[in-house]
Amino acid sequence: MPRTTQTLISDRRRYLGPNVSTFYDEPVHVVRGEDVWLWDADGRKYLDCYNNVPHVGHCNPRVVEAICRQASTLNTHTRYLHDGILDYVARLTGTMDDSLDSAILTCTGSEANDIALRMAEAMTGKRGIIATDATYHGNTALVSQLSTSNPPKTGFGLGQYFRFVEAPDSYRRPDPDGTLFAEAVAEQIARHEAEGTGFAALLICPYFLNEGFPDHPDGWLRPVADVVRRAGGLLICDEVQSGFGRTGTHLWAHEKMGVVPDILTLGKPMGNGHPVGGVVTRSEILQRFREGYRYFNTFGGNPVSCAAAMAVLDELDDRDLVAQAAIVGNHARARLRALGERHAVIGDVRGSGLVFGAEFVLDRDSREPAVAYTDRVVNALRQEGFLLSKLGRHRNTLKIRPPMPFTTAHADSLIDALDDVLSRLPVTP
Amino acid sequence: MPRTTQTLISDRRRYLGPNVSTFYDEPVHVVRGEDVWLWDADGRKYLDCYNNVPHVGHCNPRVVEAICRQASTLNTHTRYLHDGILDYVARLTGTMDDSLDSAILTCTGSEANDIALRMAEAMTGKRGIIATDATYHGNTALVSQLSTSNPPKTGFGLGQYFRFVEAPDSYRRPDPDGTLFAEAVAEQIARHEAEGTGFAALLICPYFLNEGFPDHPDGWLRPVADVVRRAGGLLICDEVQSGFGRTGTHLWAHEKMGVVPDILTLGKPMGNGHPVGGVVTRSEILQRFREGYRYFNTFGGNPVSCAAAMAVLDELDDRDLVAQAAIVGNHARARLRALGERHAVIGDVRGSGLVFGAEFVLDRDSREPAVAYTDRVVNALRQEGFLLSKLGRHRNTLKIRPPMPFTTAHADSLIDALDDVLSRLPVTP
Repeated sequence: MPRTTQTLISDRRRYLGPNVSTFYDEPVHVVRGEDVWLWDADGRKYLDCYNNVPHVGHCNPRVVEAICRQASTLNTHTRYLHDGILDYVARLTGTMDDSLDSAILTCTGSEANDIALRMAEAMTGKRGIIATDATYHGNTALVSQLSTSNPPKTGFGLGQYFRFVEAPDSYRRPDPDGTLFAEAVAEQIARHEAEGTGFAALLICPYFLNEGFPDHPDGWLRPVADVVRRAGGLLICDEVQSGFGRTGTHLWAHEKMGVVPDILTLGKPMGNGHPVGGVVTRSEILQRFREGYRYFNTFGGNPVSCAAAMAVLDELDDRDLVAQAAIVGNHARARLRALGERHAVIGDVRGSGLVFGAEFVLDRDSREPAVAYTDRVVNALRQEGFLLSKLGRHRNTLKIRPPMPFTTAHADSLIDALDDVLSRLPVTP
Repeated sequence: MPRTTQTLISDRRRYLGPNVSTFYDEPVHVVRGEDVWLWDADGRKYLDCYNNVPHVGHCNPRVVEAICRQASTLNTHTRYLHDGILDYVARLTGTMDDSLDSAILTCTGSEANDIALRMAEAMTGKRGIIATDATYHGNTALVSQLSTSNPPKTGFGLGQYFRFVEAPDSYRRPDPDGTLFAEAVAEQIARHEAEGTGFAALLICPYFLNEGFPDHPDGWLRPVADVVRRAGGLLICDEVQSGFGRTGTHLWAHEKMGVVPDILTLGKPMGNGHPVGGVVTRSEILQRFREGYRYFNTFGGNPVSCAAAMAVLDELDDRDLVAQAAIVGNHARARLRALGERHAVIGDVRGSGLVFGAEFVLDRDSREPAVAYTDRVVNALRQEGFLLSKLGRHRNTLKIRPPMPFTTAHADSLIDALDDVLSRLPVTP
């Protein structure tokens, strides 16, 4: 018998401990998903404007079929030979720059970033890592150190190897050609070197999704990549969120931003919710890492994971979902901007493809973040049947990042609902 | 078109890098699995006497059905409410001591151990970890430090927090009541304290599977547990291999060994190959950890993983597979001992339930390990259609650890084949 919402919440506290985050003042008890839709236990339907993990749609039939077929045929580890992992890695690396030619498959993006940082140490002999101060890259002891927003109290002293730069913010602190960001990174590189940790790598989401997807021209990362390379460090692009066509214009956000990373990490959307992650890199880096450590991951690259991940690529290709994301995203942003003409709380509209949002401000001149208001809008939309969230340094930017089959009609219904909510909710601090 | 074995091997080198381990001189190209059987690309059938990940059998229909049903209904993360994770954690913790009452679900055993070590740091404020010198506990930057057999060249200086004790060895260095092991651990605790790292935890597989499953009486871990607790440290039992009834006599090997761990970590067999892991602990420990770090795992505890894991428990219960493992294991070991009367190379026969094996020696008096011979036996059995491996400090012990539906008839056919191979292969160093 399904629990009531109250029992679910108290049982979570009992079995899973405190501090287990939920979305919304009234968390949603989901029981079913299909395409861009979720249903709760009362049969209520929600338009999913948030979840990137079900990249090609909740319960995508092709992915489900691939999982069922392979799970009932064979599921084993990579100490036996199997075509699945090789077919997938060949196809995946085939979508990238020629230099990104080999991979390790993992189960999560956290595992992928954990490997990437060790690759950087293996290549440079140094340990200093740089990230932005408003991001998240995973949950292992090592990679949890990359987040200033959720700083772990424990971590075996690893914090000493991490330094942070202010996250780019095109709305409040324009940096149109990326030189300010490059300078900030150069400064932290110098500090790493001065303090004896040395500089190993810059790890960033190339589209800065958690930071609020700042509005930058294509190629914006070139100056910082130059700084990193001149200092002998590695550029690690975490495309756990930005990859697989999310930005609409490119399959990989690093291409949009004009760089080829030394290491690319993948996760969430890769298997449409099946636990798959990966590290793609140059063979010389993979070789250096593997010669120093015989990495093995029991579930990583198993035939079922590879079948799920391959089905995701098939869906993206056959349904032309990346191009569709560009069209839908452009349409949605145009409508959001039009909304801005009637709702002064909308200070900025940004994004690319199917990651976009509006930043809410109390005053367009002062740009004071409308933090509490953003929260009320997110919760009001949830009550109206639209699931999305908020993000950015001030937590005042709507985070709209739906499954890729999201259409202009879906976008229209969301923007209409947002229009209603903004008209109804008085803007107060 | 499936690749040839040679192309598979060269493509692995190309796409996955060097040092990707395979089993056997001639690796097996598997294409299908069912129950205790695997088939290769040529249609050849192998009796799987090795794989514990497909715990309730390769492609177990109940697990596959659970995965397909849930994957086509809903797969999402724990920021929404769902009964699946709560039903599973309630059922799982219900099989254990009352104190082990709450859990974090992960995707891998590595992630689970990575959390467990941080829990120990959170509880004790110290960082010194102790493990045995012939084991493996996973692949993250932190937990890869636990293995002396595959020491990572990189790891952000984490090696300083790990000390090792000689793995127990009932055949060569008897310690019938566990006091020698407890003394060895006490010595390393003192060194951790003396060197300023302090002592946080002892992390062991309670049945010492990788170490060669030494033959100890039930309750053998009590002295070491006392030493650990008196020193203010935590006992972490890694039951990634030993759990879920593997030893036949108990669902959890720590019960067999007479202790209740502070933290229990789970992995491989938990979802029958679906990527699921977990950390089970007392609520006070979970609370301390979670209050110091808002841990979230995107795929961890998702409804599909929980459905797979629940189906594994259903199969174990409904088919009484733990009791069957005890019977089959006892039968197999009796036959192995009988084989020892005719084959002097068999120096020792050990194990419990469906983890067992024979240690091969060149001479029963000197007990010199027959290392190369063991390797030849493993490869000869693979050629005969029986898949198993070798382990232990000297790599001279057969590792027999089949899926739990393994029957006495399967055991008989394996022992018969082993008898043939031992009769045929001259014992040479």
